[in-house]
Amino acid sequence: MSSSFGTTLRVQVFGQSHSKAIGCVVEGLPAGYAIDMDRLQSFMDRRAPGRTAWSTPRREADAPHIVSGLNGRGQTCGTPLAAIIENTNTRSADYGDMRRKPRPGHADFAAWAKWGDWHDVSGGGHFSARLTAPLCVAGGIALQVLTSRGVRIRAHVAQVGSEHDERFDALDMGPRAQSHLREQLDYLEALPTDAFPTLSESAATRMARLIDETRRDLDSIGGVVECVATGLPAGVGGPRYDGIQGAIARIVFGIPAVKGLEFGRGFEVASLTGSANNDPFRVVDGMCEPATNNAGGSLGGISSGAPVLWRMAVKPTPSIARAQDTVDLATMTPSTLEVRGRHDPCVAARAVPIAEAATALALLDSWLTFPPSDWR
Amino acid sequence: MSSSFGTTLRVQVFGQSHSKAIGCVVEGLPAGYAIDMDRLQSFMDRRAPGRTAWSTPRREADAPHIVSGLNGRGQTCGTPLAAIIENTNTRSADYGDMRRKPRPGHADFAAWAKWGDWHDVSGGGHFSARLTAPLCVAGGIALQVLTSRGVRIRAHVAQVGSEHDERFDALDMGPRAQSHLREQLDYLEALPTDAFPTLSESAATRMARLIDETRRDLDSIGGVVECVATGLPAGVGGPRYDGIQGAIARIVFGIPAVKGLEFGRGFEVASLTGSANNDPFRVVDGMCEPATNNAGGSLGGISSGAPVLWRMAVKPTPSIARAQDTVDLATMTPSTLEVRGRHDPCVAARAVPIAEAATALALLDSWLTFPPSDWR
Amino acid sequence: MSSSFGTTLRVQVFGQSHSKAIGCVVEGLPAGYAIDMDRLQSFMDRRAPGRTAWSTPRREADAPHIVSGLNGRGQTCGTPLAAIIENTNTRSADYGDMRRKPRPGHADFAAWAKWGDWHDVSGGGHFSARLTAPLCVAGGIALQVLTSRGVRIRAHVAQVGSEHDERFDALDMGPRAQSHLREQLDYLEALPTDAFPTLSESAATRMARLIDETRRDLDSIGGVVECVATGLPAGVGGPRYDGIQGAIARIVFGIPAVKGLEFGRGFEVASLTGSANNDPFRVVDGMCEPATNNAGGSLGGISSGAPVLWRMAVKPTPSIARAQDTVDLATMTPSTLEVRGRHDPCVAARAVPIAEAATALALLDSWLTFPPSDWR
Amino acid sequence: MSSSFGTTLRVQVFGQSHSKAIGCVVEGLPAGYAIDMDRLQSFMDRRAPGRTAWSTPRREADAPHIVSGLNGRGQTCGTPLAAIIENTNTRSADYGDMRRKPRPGHADFAAWAKWGDWHDVSGGGHFSARLTAPLCVAGGIALQVLTSRGVRIRAHVAQVGSEHDERFDALDMGPRAQSHLREQLDYLEALPTDAFPTLSESAATRMARLIDETRRDLDSIGGVVECVATGLPAGVGGPRYDGIQGAIARIVFGIPAVKGLEFGRGFEVASLTGSANNDPFRVVDGMCEPATNNAGGSLGGISSGAPVLWRMAVKPTPSIARAQDTVDLATMTPSTLEVRGRHDPCVAARAVPIAEAATALALLDSWLTFPPSDWR
Repeated sequence: MSSSFGTTLRVQVFGQSHSKAIGCVVEGLPAGYAIDMDRLQSFMDRRAPGRTAWSTPRREADAPHIVSGLNGRGQTCGTPLAAIIENTNTRSADYGDMRRKPRPGHADFAAWAKWGDWHDVSGGGHFSARLTAPLCVAGGIALQVLTSRGVRIRAHVAQVGSEHDERFDALDMGPRAQSHLREQLDYLEALPTDAFPTLSESAATRMARLIDETRRDLDSIGGVVECVATGLPAGVGGPRYDGIQGAIARIVFGIPAVKGLEFGRGFEVASLTGSANNDPFRVVDGMCEPATNNAGGSLGGISSGAPVLWRMAVKPTPSIARAQDTVDLATMTPSTLEVRGRHDPCVAARAVPIAEAATALALLDSWLTFPPSDWR
Repeated sequence: MSSSFGTTLRVQVFGQSHSKAIGCVVEGLPAGYAIDMDRLQSFMDRRAPGRTAWSTPRREADAPHIVSGLNGRGQTCGTPLAAIIENTNTRSADYGDMRRKPRPGHADFAAWAKWGDWHDVSGGGHFSARLTAPLCVAGGIALQVLTSRGVRIRAHVAQVGSEHDERFDALDMGPRAQSHLREQLDYLEALPTDAFPTLSESAATRMARLIDETRRDLDSIGGVVECVATGLPAGVGGPRYDGIQGAIARIVFGIPAVKGLEFGRGFEVASLTGSANNDPFRVVDGMCEPATNNAGGSLGGISSGAPVLWRMAVKPTPSIARAQDTVDLATMTPSTLEVRGRHDPCVAARAVPIAEAATALALLDSWLTFPPSDWR
Repeated sequence: MSSSFGTTLRVQVFGQSHSKAIGCVVEGLPAGYAIDMDRLQSFMDRRAPGRTAWSTPRREADAPHIVSGLNGRGQTCGTPLAAIIENTNTRSADYGDMRRKPRPGHADFAAWAKWGDWHDVSGGGHFSARLTAPLCVAGGIALQVLTSRGVRIRAHVAQVGSEHDERFDALDMGPRAQSHLREQLDYLEALPTDAFPTLSESAATRMARLIDETRRDLDSIGGVVECVATGLPAGVGGPRYDGIQGAIARIVFGIPAVKGLEFGRGFEVASLTGSANNDPFRVVDGMCEPATNNAGGSLGGISSGAPVLWRMAVKPTPSIARAQDTVDLATMTPSTLEVRGRHDPCVAARAVPIAEAATALALLDSWLTFPPSDWR
Repeated sequence: MSSSFGTTLRVQVFGQSHSKAIGCVVEGLPAGYAIDMDRLQSFMDRRAPGRTAWSTPRREADAPHIVSGLNGRGQTCGTPLAAIIENTNTRSADYGDMRRKPRPGHADFAAWAKWGDWHDVSGGGHFSARLTAPLCVAGGIALQVLTSRGVRIRAHVAQVGSEHDERFDALDMGPRAQSHLREQLDYLEALPTDAFPTLSESAATRMARLIDETRRDLDSIGGVVECVATGLPAGVGGPRYDGIQGAIARIVFGIPAVKGLEFGRGFEVASLTGSANNDPFRVVDGMCEPATNNAGGSLGGISSGAPVLWRMAVKPTPSIARAQDTVDLATMTPSTLEVRGRHDPCVAARAVPIAEAATALALLDSWLTFPPSDWR
């Protein structure tokens, strides 16, 4: 069904923006992992609203309460882990108008077409970006499991409007590039929770300035988030429709505002020749591995041993304070709407931990469901 | 599992490039549809190799035998429909080398990392583009069902290397754009089966010429395929992870060589403001609908009633006749490889019906599983 | 995965006997149903422990808090419904011994073989009968939806040890039997929440007496629960592995202590001839229907229009106060165990609403996923 | 969907009694197993009709053609294995009447209620017992994998009408019982393919005689099949709804004619006390194991290490040559029917390999999806 995904590691997300609580259930976590709750909370804090100049002033503690799935010593015990986040700071009054006037660019209208007046439009209902909080709970736990297996996952804001960050040095597999990539990951890991997550400090400054200008202009702006995972062995992932590309895609296109996804060279491959795009193989430490990584770590959906590298395009937040044309659904007459409420002018920065969560969940599920054979 | 997808309309694909047969099983087709076998064969022919100057000389009849799922009058009867395509023209000798020397850019190495020497490497095994033939059988049948419900689906080659085609006129919903889009669909439908599928004749000429040059240069080239579906009502698709974007994504990233996918404006949204990207609503014939279609027909994963518009990036065929660096897996020593066999220098044209098949299967499954409520 | 089931109506159960909370998530509920919380609580009360002489003295409010899935007016809104039940009255000290000494007949040992010392043994962990409370929340809601569609579902204790109740008059479809069956359902519906649920008053007295004797004998006793559903139209259910028999079976064998399941005549069919067992067809009100119901409402897994009738065998509670042989897992030496804690001497009575919940969830999912065709 | 089952090992069955072919696709088979085709054919022969006095005279080669999933050396290669069985000996004329007159006790009517006139009624369509042939192909392969892991699975006819066979000596775990059980398995394995499969020779004689008498009486008769699996380690299976009981149940209730299923003591537990039914634990070779096996090898859905023991009730074949009351669906008037065609008077004997196949598929999937933790 629609608000769940995964095969062996199965994640179910529930809640609406203004329901009593939101949360997730994670089935299939391996037993015996002690969850570091402080680390999980730090991870959640990177997504949480209200902490920085560049996000919505709605403040939520976003403190996940794990109500099942752990034994008395705080270790995963093999049974479904459920986590609840209470919704405390809701202002439904902000949304009174929206039951009748769908916001352009938002899911309001499509959900009305689907469920009519039964739809819970308040705060965006189930389609709210707030529902990425339980995704981050599940992903933050998966990240802890993957860390113990030697996998590192990090994302950054690669683009906001006309402003660009450096890229991950993950298309080359030479020792210099690999060392540079490690430094990039170290740098991102060392950033404070509330920093604007870029590889280049100047990009952070330029992007934050552009977002601030856009907000003062009563507008919003789109962006690109880039994510990388290192340390995944070759041979993970199923063929064809459950390959690691597909596993990541299914989660990523469930994140509100995502309109594009690409792996490795991505859309650039359209202009490349095979001789330029193919990644030749070489021998390193007695084992075959790709010498370059234009494929972004996935060959036929199966991991190649090179870093998994992908980018997603995030559209500008639809909720803007400018007057926009819409329709009064009760009378079916033209109308206009100025969205009040509290909204991010750019969701790219807050989407960074979400991208990491999505990657962690997709790769851990792939690893558990479609591991490399133990044939060697 | 990995070679199947869908919820109510479930498709299972099987076969290897050089196994006795390939095929598919489709569960959940509504009962009572008479399958037009000639139309299905025409659809298959657009994908089939060996028919045109710009594809592999391997010739296969690609004639699907439907062995179950129809009643005595050739109508779907509600039970699983199975279709078999025999592999007749296999030349496994071409692939002798590949068991030891993985082709750069191909799944050979990843599959070896997964299954070791048990992997059936011959002809690319289960990862061969040949496995898109059963996908087209399933999709061709879904297309016939959707046609009877008023949905039209068409794709074209939007880009090959530096050469570009016109785009579908599907980002605007004005009467002129809608009429133009209908003409574009009419034009593509009228093309002969073996034509190079573009909207502009000159683009076809330029692209075919570029592909031919690339082939003579013992190389291959990437491309972009654009696909559109019109006539889908608003309210189809589940929220979040089973939205129509995610349903299309899961199938598309199971097509060999795909490295990117975008909807509507796609990656362009990163540079847009909300006021430019939001699609305002208007009243047409007493019903609310989007006035523009930057969202590509999907809001929150649910159809908006506007055309579903998406593009995928297809990498250059990895199998090229030039010498490439690889590794002899038996000795783990450096080696080189020149891929002989028969390979497409550009798969974009043959990927056009595949894109249509993927769209048809994703949208029909979404419609059957997550229909608009009958609340009105 | 293991603690979830269903196709369109998907139920996920979580929690351990002594975790902070237990609960469920229900995806795929049709939108627009107002949940009657009082009726749901009454349904829960029939399962709740601590209310009657014949059950465990552990008392739990068992009050489900629905935290998502309803709109502001208390109606299902189409998105996942989550319900939480807090665990308040836990006495983990009772279970100190069990980490080392598995209870004969209980899942302790099997769970240890599976998860080792990471297993949460306290109170039976995820295997506790307490986990049937969230199943009843989900089922109680499904029952309300089915009631509005004209379906009635009721169960009773058919057997405890040597004591038997009357059977549902559901094997015959004659007017007298149908009228009698309606009276039986009316009778059960009119019983107080804390009554011992049988069709015959004297059976209730005899069974309660036997259970009481068994308890005083420091022992427990098994039983049979019989369940019937009327009003389901013909043509519901998928063929073969997702037929209504299979849908019910999958949930029923997930209820702790169930060791057998039979439909209609059940195991009796082994001694019957076809001429005795076949249900002939007749015309009633211009429509074909079975004249008898030996098949228990299912032909080839698809509903026949006759009542769905089934029985399950429930084993005696494994937790008894007598000394039993077990093994100290820490030392792998023989040991003995007397289970203290608070345990039901017979779970059949409390299993009655659980059987109804299982039936409601299986039939509603089958109806939503595999409805009769709208071909007429 | 309905004609498929399994999580990691996923089986899809397709075909109708009189379609061109029937078959199955098996996803998730571990790579590297060489399939012994002779052994598979012998297994199929035990189910095949037309070979013995006590089954239908319809003769089918039932020779499965494996068209994918094996590498050039006949080993599973990790990709979906598809097997096709052609339908050669069909006599649709036998079924002309049935389109209008549903057979009492058969799925004809329920399928008509579901799919109307689009249903392929011929030969029972998808509901035919013939569809157990592809189940046996999949199960026969799973059996070969399990054999290599030390698991033995065998079934026998435990009852036909009033005639009973001995039972498997699998409720006790003492050395004498275990040795006796091994002898019983040896005996069944040594039986010729076309023997009536019982543990006692005299039971075979008595049952065959009863079936013959029943046939001459133009009638049919029901039976019970009992199945056992030894060698499965403790800790296999998921908790609750995907336990090994539920995994077996879902497949078994997809076998035509099955109306009951019980594990271990089964329905007998209703009359037992906990002190009699609980299986105490003991130490054998330094490891804890149950000393008796009333639970039939499953505690909380997880294997206990003791033999998995279950029985299913199979109803008398509905197709009998006697005149039966039915309804002419075209005119909705009462009618009568004498089923001609070729039908088994008792399906219990042919159901024996089907029970083994179901057990093998359920246990192998459980083992692959929910293995014991590698925590020791």
